[in-house]
Amino acid sequence: MINLVESKKSFNGFQKVFKHESSSNKSLMHFAVYEPDISINCPVLYFLSGLTCTEQNFIQKSGFQQFASNYKIAVVVPDTSPRGKDIPDSDDFKLGQGAGFYINATNDVWSINYNMYDYIVKELTEIIDKNFNFSKTQIGIFGHSMGGGGAIQCALKNPKYFKSLSAFSPICSLYKSNFAKLALKNYFNNDSNLINSFDPMYLLKEQKNLFDNILIDVGLKDEFINDLFIDEFVNECDKIGQKTNFRKHLDFGHDYYFIQSFIEDHFDFHSNILNFGKSYKGLGG
Amino acid sequence: MINLVESKKSFNGFQKVFKHESSSNKSLMHFAVYEPDISINCPVLYFLSGLTCTEQNFIQKSGFQQFASNYKIAVVVPDTSPRGKDIPDSDDFKLGQGAGFYINATNDVWSINYNMYDYIVKELTEIIDKNFNFSKTQIGIFGHSMGGGGAIQCALKNPKYFKSLSAFSPICSLYKSNFAKLALKNYFNNDSNLINSFDPMYLLKEQKNLFDNILIDVGLKDEFINDLFIDEFVNECDKIGQKTNFRKHLDFGHDYYFIQSFIEDHFDFHSNILNFGKSYKGLGG
Repeated sequence: MINLVESKKSFNGFQKVFKHESSSNKSLMHFAVYEPDISINCPVLYFLSGLTCTEQNFIQKSGFQQFASNYKIAVVVPDTSPRGKDIPDSDDFKLGQGAGFYINATNDVWSINYNMYDYIVKELTEIIDKNFNFSKTQIGIFGHSMGGGGAIQCALKNPKYFKSLSAFSPICSLYKSNFAKLALKNYFNNDSNLINSFDPMYLLKEQKNLFDNILIDVGLKDEFINDLFIDEFVNECDKIGQKTNFRKHLDFGHDYYFIQSFIEDHFDFHSNILNFGKSYKGLGG
Repeated sequence: MINLVESKKSFNGFQKVFKHESSSNKSLMHFAVYEPDISINCPVLYFLSGLTCTEQNFIQKSGFQQFASNYKIAVVVPDTSPRGKDIPDSDDFKLGQGAGFYINATNDVWSINYNMYDYIVKELTEIIDKNFNFSKTQIGIFGHSMGGGGAIQCALKNPKYFKSLSAFSPICSLYKSNFAKLALKNYFNNDSNLINSFDPMYLLKEQKNLFDNILIDVGLKDEFINDLFIDEFVNECDKIGQKTNFRKHLDFGHDYYFIQSFIEDHFDFHSNILNFGKSYKGLGG
């Protein structure tokens, strides 16, 4: 059961927000859906946001609706964690509410509610399939920062479901990024098998080329660039023959002004694959 | 003396925020400036925001930078009032901080700091003239809600300075709008001569046609439409021969999803006048 919280006309479609009781996270969750005016069997893009974000940041600040409307692509934007006064939290923005990291926690109090991987890949996708008339097959994923890494992780593990993949300033290594240290300790008690199963870099090394192409954008004035490990990720892609379109943009930062400046290119990229092309090459290439 | 608070690359230009001590408002004020990549003698657009907004709302949510960048127009976005713990305020969002109404208050405690009309038209315009290399002559103004009314007011009183004018969902009558009642009582002690001097509808009635055209957009699902009095304003424009392009948009609301959906048209409108045309027809037509 999902309940409509808000519906606002935006370009030719509607920007909607829903709430529902999540079985994965045992928490009330909000998610946003942009419905283009012609939505029957239209492609669907999932956008995963970065640390501290709710479902609101991307829908208010990225300006994506202009292109979702033009390209006739539905866009689903989940929150980044369970939330509420009864949900475990911490004073550090890198742990707890707003810092779900798109993993399933196994450790301590976190294991009950922090199951964002299952929430995105199993629960939310099923909700979208059931409640909307969008395409059940032409589905892509992208994200920013923590959510860029989350998009890579989800896509690498489910390349038959997510047929196109792109990222803005993704955190490509949970092991190396200072952003993930607290999360790994608390959610996994630093268990390396568990971390491996959610780490973009590790998952890539275990696989052959999966996608025709992966679009990755980063700003060269990104104040967090040394905690993202994108160069290493792209080098690893090169090694296994995974094509990337990795673009470094002079003067841009880690913020939504950066995202809004290149969001059109991401819609163009996903639209080409989801409407015309075929990105998934099959596990094992 | 103005100080740079933030500078972020956005499209081909930079979204900057400055702070300074305002002589009009005797308060620290923030304002935003979007500088396109080619800014020497470029046109300048002032955007006046609505109730509760700071300089941040429009720059984060409207998506205007895409078009300011394309059209090579600088955009100046002031805060909507003085702010700070020593500045008079109220618990009602329609009075005090965030509710400057682009007037000069004369009454009571408000008269010291609430001089947003002078701030915009005298102080900020001079700051922009002095500190940037933008055009000193090709200057337009627009705004939303309280700021839409403010833009009309400022333009009607200074048509030689503001050569182009447009508005989203403007409050066209201070006398009739419930949004302004508290402000009129507190800022002016309801003095009708003072109110007249800032009221868009009254100012229009006192004048002949001033602009080649005024673009006004409103959403038909605007929950505040009955407090805007746009139909009355446009009727009055018709009477005096002031041309308007008044557009009513099915399903749209009063929000930034509405603004972002039509912001391109406003840049096109202002660009045509400021780059090519000539809108001011002289006082007395």
